[in-house]
Amino acid sequence: MNPPSRATIGDVARHAGVSKGTVSLAYSGKRPVSEETRRRIFSAAAELEWTASHRARALATSRTGAIGLVIARDPEVLATDAFFSKFLSGCERVLAEHDMGLMLHAVTTAEAEHLVYERLAAGRADGVILLDVEIDDPRFALVRRLGLPAVVLSAHEPTRGETAGLPTVFSDDSPAVTELVTLMAEAGHTRIAHVAGPAHYIHGRIRQEAFRAAVRERGLDDSMVIEGDFTAASGRDATTQLLDLPEPPTAILYANDMMAIAGLSLARSRGVRVPEDLSLSGYDDSELSAHLSPALTTVGTGAVQRGELAVTTLLAALAGEAPGAVLADHTTVLPRGSIAPPPRP
Amino acid sequence: MNPPSRATIGDVARHAGVSKGTVSLAYSGKRPVSEETRRRIFSAAAELEWTASHRARALATSRTGAIGLVIARDPEVLATDAFFSKFLSGCERVLAEHDMGLMLHAVTTAEAEHLVYERLAAGRADGVILLDVEIDDPRFALVRRLGLPAVVLSAHEPTRGETAGLPTVFSDDSPAVTELVTLMAEAGHTRIAHVAGPAHYIHGRIRQEAFRAAVRERGLDDSMVIEGDFTAASGRDATTQLLDLPEPPTAILYANDMMAIAGLSLARSRGVRVPEDLSLSGYDDSELSAHLSPALTTVGTGAVQRGELAVTTLLAALAGEAPGAVLADHTTVLPRGSIAPPPRP
Repeated sequence: MNPPSRATIGDVARHAGVSKGTVSLAYSGKRPVSEETRRRIFSAAAELEWTASHRARALATSRTGAIGLVIARDPEVLATDAFFSKFLSGCERVLAEHDMGLMLHAVTTAEAEHLVYERLAAGRADGVILLDVEIDDPRFALVRRLGLPAVVLSAHEPTRGETAGLPTVFSDDSPAVTELVTLMAEAGHTRIAHVAGPAHYIHGRIRQEAFRAAVRERGLDDSMVIEGDFTAASGRDATTQLLDLPEPPTAILYANDMMAIAGLSLARSRGVRVPEDLSLSGYDDSELSAHLSPALTTVGTGAVQRGELAVTTLLAALAGEAPGAVLADHTTVLPRGSIAPPPRP
Repeated sequence: MNPPSRATIGDVARHAGVSKGTVSLAYSGKRPVSEETRRRIFSAAAELEWTASHRARALATSRTGAIGLVIARDPEVLATDAFFSKFLSGCERVLAEHDMGLMLHAVTTAEAEHLVYERLAAGRADGVILLDVEIDDPRFALVRRLGLPAVVLSAHEPTRGETAGLPTVFSDDSPAVTELVTLMAEAGHTRIAHVAGPAHYIHGRIRQEAFRAAVRERGLDDSMVIEGDFTAASGRDATTQLLDLPEPPTAILYANDMMAIAGLSLARSRGVRVPEDLSLSGYDDSELSAHLSPALTTVGTGAVQRGELAVTTLLAALAGEAPGAVLADHTTVLPRGSIAPPPRP
């Protein structure tokens, strides 16, 4: 057997007549390199038997080749979150183009979360995407202290200073919620309820505020709001409470599909027909929502596109740009069979 | 500002009077180091200003501190797979104890998949877990050629040579499927159908074979099998086909919850009551299954425990042990409200 190749990235660069940085770029794809130069570098590498693991090591000296994503949620919720896996596949699509991977950590305590960010900063990731941000999120200060580049995913346009100057990919759920209320109101509903997500999550709070504003604007009662926690169990329980009211709602707008599907099932088990007796809508466009009978009116969140945009924005930040706040404009109401006129009194 | 620290792991080791390996262990936690030794190493590191990124780099020279997981499935399926996220959280639980992360790649083509394994082998992961293995899976030869340690997750005990000598964490879905058929048969059902997963997935095939064997053993018709693809859409369509039969089944055993929930919804929309007219069962114990009305009889797969076991087995393999085939014995039938006696003829 031959001894292992001792060629370095410098040897390859000299042989190809380019800089070491250009050799790196040819392999990483982080910035374009001309086809001619790339070919010259690849043949130099082949001639010198400069192998993949050498290349990888060379790349690793400046960049880890990975971005980090820390999921600080109950794994049980994670398992049913339609948004998460789609977001992940969007991230992956862009990362693959840049020869990068996603370093994923699921944590269940604040201590573990803190430690993971320290580890990521210590050479395991070039940057991170912050999901599920809360008001005054302690991670903003943490990543700044660690010098870890970060992009924030937010459910509304950040006000000045709100995300501590971090680049932010934001969407705005308010127009979709307003549109759902309009669909229900125009079908004739006057008693519309909301099963909300937890208000300490920005997207939970935004949807609830948009709901209240939209029904108030139509002169309707905005008090039928029950706060769930995005789980099916909370959707079922909130629906029970609403249907037990002396004057139950004829339409329910849920803050996600999981709660809506459990609510639909509960209503039917009580002999309440959907949509004849009760109209309802979800949020997230989970795979199941389109294939229920009736199919669930819901909101497509452009989760894949948001993953792509989050990574693109983070890569721009790593390249020294200052992306600021970027609007992810992919939110779409998907009207299906679960909204119909209310029963005649 | 001070110039950056030039201390090496060797300096720290000499200063603390231990080997470089012990310094590594003190930081990685891969094997226990006495509290006294750990303290000595940490103060040496502090004195020499040996910082986190130096430590990370030192660890990275021999180990990447990560294991790889490549998901070669349509992201749409991934988004609704109850097993995946639970499995991930089990992996993460053990990885966190060992100061390790999970390098995750989602790929949608065979070419991309191949490339990702090459990259992982080239310094991005110490080893990989192979999910969704197929018969004669080409990844067995690939990881061997790349010298990439791997653990296979399988839905049955591997026969000699089947997983090419790779350590395997296996479960056996057959007893749970047999138990579900027994529940249905003992409730009085004689026309039992199966909505299967794709037979090219081992777990799809195993469940289907167990179903056919169990109904045949009771002298019942084993021909009512429709192959779905684990998506809600296929569950809905298969259920339509079954209910349109001249003599429809009175019980349907689905190969996963997603197909079962779409089937339940379809049946109800046609006025078929569950469980009065039609009994059904799922597989996976998704969060939604427990909170439908009626709750869905399903199978808990011990996904979290399997994630833990897969990582533990991979770490054992990395440490030079030869784990062989390890049984993950966490599969449990969860009887709920969706199975009842058939309607009287």
